[in-house]
Amino acid sequence: MALVVQKYGGSSLESADRIKRVAERIVATKKAGNEVVVVCSAMGDTTDELLDLAEQVNPVPPEREMDMLLTAGERISNALVAMAISAQGAEAWSFTGSQAGVVTTSVHGNARIIDVTPSRVTEALEQGYIALVAGFQGVAQDTKDITTLGRGGSDTTAVALAAALNADVCEIYSDVDGVYTADPRIVPNARKLDTVPYEEMLELAASGSKILHLRSVEYARRYGVPIRVRSSYSDKPGTTVAGSIEEIPVEQALITGVAHDRSEAKITVTGVPDHAGAAGRIFRTVADAEIDIDMVLQNISNTAGRTDITFTLSKANGPKAVAELEKIKDELDFTAVLYDDHVGKVSLVGAGMRSHPGVTASFCEALAKAGVNIEIINTSEIRISVLIRDAQLDDAVRAIHEAFELGGDEEAVVYAGSGR
Amino acid sequence: MALVVQKYGGSSLESADRIKRVAERIVATKKAGNEVVVVCSAMGDTTDELLDLAEQVNPVPPEREMDMLLTAGERISNALVAMAISAQGAEAWSFTGSQAGVVTTSVHGNARIIDVTPSRVTEALEQGYIALVAGFQGVAQDTKDITTLGRGGSDTTAVALAAALNADVCEIYSDVDGVYTADPRIVPNARKLDTVPYEEMLELAASGSKILHLRSVEYARRYGVPIRVRSSYSDKPGTTVAGSIEEIPVEQALITGVAHDRSEAKITVTGVPDHAGAAGRIFRTVADAEIDIDMVLQNISNTAGRTDITFTLSKANGPKAVAELEKIKDELDFTAVLYDDHVGKVSLVGAGMRSHPGVTASFCEALAKAGVNIEIINTSEIRISVLIRDAQLDDAVRAIHEAFELGGDEEAVVYAGSGR
Repeated sequence: MALVVQKYGGSSLESADRIKRVAERIVATKKAGNEVVVVCSAMGDTTDELLDLAEQVNPVPPEREMDMLLTAGERISNALVAMAISAQGAEAWSFTGSQAGVVTTSVHGNARIIDVTPSRVTEALEQGYIALVAGFQGVAQDTKDITTLGRGGSDTTAVALAAALNADVCEIYSDVDGVYTADPRIVPNARKLDTVPYEEMLELAASGSKILHLRSVEYARRYGVPIRVRSSYSDKPGTTVAGSIEEIPVEQALITGVAHDRSEAKITVTGVPDHAGAAGRIFRTVADAEIDIDMVLQNISNTAGRTDITFTLSKANGPKAVAELEKIKDELDFTAVLYDDHVGKVSLVGAGMRSHPGVTASFCEALAKAGVNIEIINTSEIRISVLIRDAQLDDAVRAIHEAFELGGDEEAVVYAGSGR
Repeated sequence: MALVVQKYGGSSLESADRIKRVAERIVATKKAGNEVVVVCSAMGDTTDELLDLAEQVNPVPPEREMDMLLTAGERISNALVAMAISAQGAEAWSFTGSQAGVVTTSVHGNARIIDVTPSRVTEALEQGYIALVAGFQGVAQDTKDITTLGRGGSDTTAVALAAALNADVCEIYSDVDGVYTADPRIVPNARKLDTVPYEEMLELAASGSKILHLRSVEYARRYGVPIRVRSSYSDKPGTTVAGSIEEIPVEQALITGVAHDRSEAKITVTGVPDHAGAAGRIFRTVADAEIDIDMVLQNISNTAGRTDITFTLSKANGPKAVAELEKIKDELDFTAVLYDDHVGKVSLVGAGMRSHPGVTASFCEALAKAGVNIEIINTSEIRISVLIRDAQLDDAVRAIHEAFELGGDEEAVVYAGSGR
């Protein structure tokens, strides 16, 4: 008998019919002899509807109350799934994040899990029940207020519960049936991967892959929780995320896949006096506004002793970063802040590049052949990323996928939508 | 500085605009120098929408999960009211029933409050916040599961909190601006009452008045909490429910009002053998099905030693009661079970009838004059109720209101809708 944690996203729960289908899968897993813990996101549009109501009563709502509001969505979906399970002859108990012992920091809207003490979940399992836990939410250790975990929060709830319960596997169900060598909507012959080590999945998630959220993969890696990415529309086995690249013999290490990201923008600060501390002042200004940056490029100085500093960040933070930098223009005596949101990032990930020194060269050659100009390049031990024009992003993904012969023989099946 | 508990029903919260209006009233109460605790029901149609979803996934949903589902409604409305308060420059914290310390029995769907330990509410007030508490819900003392309090639950939450916090007043806001001598939709010159003692309000609630739920009045009486019934559409002072009829000098005691009830049905068991235990067997059968009965009539035996037993009950329980009684037909050897749901009940309530022996006579004369036939009559120390044909109910209410000269000089203002 295995202990299985399953997580279902909002698109898998968008209607009563979809909820019944999910319940069938849960009951089948239970009847196959497993102990089953389920984490559900809010139904389809619930979160958007609640956000809309909040906007109507207060355009800048207090974050504590926003968490109280949004967490109702997962309560509703979990209770409905429990009812649907009951209609199919099994029994389930649903729990709020707080009841399930998901203890977090008190940062409303973006809390981090400190501890998971799922004694009530264990008790439900011991009594033969299926346990349902509302995803995306917890209770603050100090204030005892209700918190939410931010983007990808339900995935993190599932992985954290799987770790605390020492589960055999954490299955993440959404509208894609696994991790592919590239987005099948861009590359029709993209191949589904059977297994991806944690480090590669982390790089893929950080490079724009939407399949698993970075934080949940970090959590899974730290506690050694095997994740299975599966589709709630099919019975295919999906992709297993588990193991370390350190366990792969060097000669077997491969190039795994191509990721892309359209969510970034580029800021260039021009004419920065080339003295010690100037770059630091710029990045501190951005950091103090709680904005994360991604790629960085500093040009060599020109003859006037001035340089340009370029970096990328989420488009959502673009206007704020520009405004903060304008404030230090006179102090730092730079020329201008240029903002460019027509950029895209394409990345190649694979443990194999550690032992194959020609990968970067092949990567750049493939882009050149496709007529794609590289604006910034950035690498890790197992990843190469480049910033390019957004209009060329699809072409770049296809060119790299082709150059490294990542494709399979059949066309991938693609579904629409995505969950929280 | 007074401590005021306010309760707003679902119709007062049915839209973002209505929520902002409610927030204005709350903030005004706070700015007038009061400590304010607010209990909100779920928004307008939320409960019905959730019930509809539940019905779609499971026609007979588990009660524990139904409570998990429905309590999300009050969480949503409370968080939105807190946001609206914040938009108006005051600060509020919302709490679930569990967070506010509303401890109940574990009877899902109809739990009773065992204790209220509102330490977090007190803390919020001490820090200068307005405290919002989700109505209708609590946490079971033994299982720690989420419970609901059944019909009128939010009123009960408000009164119980007011008692635990030793509040100066518990204001119940809905779409009516007070307690009237009769339903103004039936009697246009019905008069609003300034004060009603607890005992009379209990009799009115038990006789079909929808303004306050019986359980909340019982709670208020037990703990001496003054209730003010007010309209969220006006600034009128409303009606205060407080004090005992024992405090009213006999010579000042009056007839207070007329209540009516269309929710009951009548069951007659005919040809019951007139022996000891027959009536007991019938009423035990009904009680074992967890059905409450109201009025009872046993005719004298006929020459064959048989009698008819008649009683009233909620229409909702009618079919179940008939089915249970049919099961003991052979055992008890009665003739038939007759079911009649075209009945109505009209009641006259007032402490004055204790000292005025002619009230029952005047009551019956007024009905006779209006051509209304009495089927069952039932009295308490301060109430007379009769069962009549439902088609004559409005005429009966008007005739009695007129006969006891309860009317005022102006027409009452009537609003539509009602809350939980």
